[in-house]
Amino acid sequence: VGKPVFTSDRMYLETPAGVVMGLAWTSMGGSTLFIETTLSRPLDLSPDSKEQGTLTVTGHLGEVMKESVQIAYTFAKSFLVQKDPINKFLQRGFIHVHVPEGATPKDGPSAGVTIVSALLSLALNRPLIQNVAMTGEVSLTGKVLPVGGIKEKVIAAKRAGVKTVILPHENLKDFNELQDFIKEGIQAHFVKSYDEVFNIIFPK
Amino acid sequence: VGKPVFTSDRMYLETPAGVVMGLAWTSMGGSTLFIETTLSRPLDLSPDSKEQGTLTVTGHLGEVMKESVQIAYTFAKSFLVQKDPINKFLQRGFIHVHVPEGATPKDGPSAGVTIVSALLSLALNRPLIQNVAMTGEVSLTGKVLPVGGIKEKVIAAKRAGVKTVILPHENLKDFNELQDFIKEGIQAHFVKSYDEVFNIIFPK
Amino acid sequence: VGKPVFTSDRMYLETPAGVVMGLAWTSMGGSTLFIETTLSRPLDLSPDSKEQGTLTVTGHLGEVMKESVQIAYTFAKSFLVQKDPINKFLQRGFIHVHVPEGATPKDGPSAGVTIVSALLSLALNRPLIQNVAMTGEVSLTGKVLPVGGIKEKVIAAKRAGVKTVILPHENLKDFNELQDFIKEGIQAHFVKSYDEVFNIIFPK
Repeated sequence: VGKPVFTSDRMYLETPAGVVMGLAWTSMGGSTLFIETTLSRPLDLSPDSKEQGTLTVTGHLGEVMKESVQIAYTFAKSFLVQKDPINKFLQRGFIHVHVPEGATPKDGPSAGVTIVSALLSLALNRPLIQNVAMTGEVSLTGKVLPVGGIKEKVIAAKRAGVKTVILPHENLKDFNELQDFIKEGIQAHFVKSYDEVFNIIFPK
Repeated sequence: VGKPVFTSDRMYLETPAGVVMGLAWTSMGGSTLFIETTLSRPLDLSPDSKEQGTLTVTGHLGEVMKESVQIAYTFAKSFLVQKDPINKFLQRGFIHVHVPEGATPKDGPSAGVTIVSALLSLALNRPLIQNVAMTGEVSLTGKVLPVGGIKEKVIAAKRAGVKTVILPHENLKDFNELQDFIKEGIQAHFVKSYDEVFNIIFPK
Repeated sequence: VGKPVFTSDRMYLETPAGVVMGLAWTSMGGSTLFIETTLSRPLDLSPDSKEQGTLTVTGHLGEVMKESVQIAYTFAKSFLVQKDPINKFLQRGFIHVHVPEGATPKDGPSAGVTIVSALLSLALNRPLIQNVAMTGEVSLTGKVLPVGGIKEKVIAAKRAGVKTVILPHENLKDFNELQDFIKEGIQAHFVKSYDEVFNIIFPK
């Protein structure tokens, strides 16, 4: 009660375009985690440029999480073609995805929706709604799959001042089992596919 | 009291452009460490050149520190676009980053700010203020994150004749806990983001 | 006293351009070691050539020694730009560096000055002074750093008929501790930076 928000739980008070807050779960409990994306070279959008984009990934990630970035990258590119056909940012850009803090090993697929959101935010040059955090594996076609540690992740989100959490639909039962004082003050959305995430974080 | 500065603690009495003193922490205690950067080929700035720069990294670095160089390289390029838009040095240059001594294994993310500073110093062809040392993880967007071993690092800096140390803001409490005789004669700056480092090391 | 020079201690009685005698230190004691450099393709110096040089390294080298060759290559190129600005040999050349004997694993950074010297000798097409051997780590900016095994290396040099040894300045104390009969007949130079090595091996 009345505990201050720890600065270490909230690296960004406001997330700029390209940065999204995710939720992680370790043996030590839950924590927030930020996905940062940026261009590693200026974008060349001249029509005669034949350059294809590349992807650089850092943050001491395990194999599953590295693959998760690859899946998010592929999905984000195909999703953007639908939403904004003339936007060539992800196809042409030299993208760098990083997950601070660099010394902490990280693994698992549950940052999928977070990585997709960061890539789309960068490509659209548009920050997400603020005080939102999310977790969920994403498939290559945009299905959102359930993840572990819902209780710990929601507690971590709350401690960090999050107002809106986006969770996989199949984790609805895990959320409902939480005690009321944990759920209080948190608006939770349960999604089956990534387009639902998009409509929440980038409202019209 | 009255101990001489060990030459092994101070490989450079003056650091030229491209070289920056960092602080390391091992099981043996703290020590200074230099980040050296240079071009591995002459720069071709002819307007019709389409060459993109490359990055070579040496110094017996572990995976986390190699990633740290990659993050510093991406961030330094995007930071330089803001500070000096016509400067194409980092985008076009064939950059080599080395951390002596070559036989000593080194790892960890805490040289982030030091590597960024060395790259910018090289690109601007401008040495830093002298007798400055720094430590701090840097994120892809330039946030400065806390590191370990503040006590050992400050002692090592002092032994090497450093007058100004730059530390992450979140390590302020660690510095304040040091005994007065350690802090004496050291001007410490505590930073949250890299632009604060830049303003200290390259005063107008 | 009166022992013959073993042929295995002296693979070259005279070193041609591109070949330099170094000194190694193993659990078996000290030994001489030669760095051999040559072009792997004829040099194309036509002004419209856009070819950039490459580096091939052989000799069963460990990771630290491979990095040491990379550092020597970068430093030798930037040093040559200063000494002989129109000499494009190292920038354009397809250089091959080899360390006989191919079956013996070798590692460590202490051949740095030897590799730089071999590359410069090749580029200048000029042999070094004869009966010289050297050891020392070299940093990316040409600082010469101390190495281990000075006693064993000097004994090996003497056994091989070396008259001049070049050692890092920080190893001066190690040399001074040697017994007089070891030091007798050997002219030792102690250097802090590579340009001092250059002036010794290529006298005007």
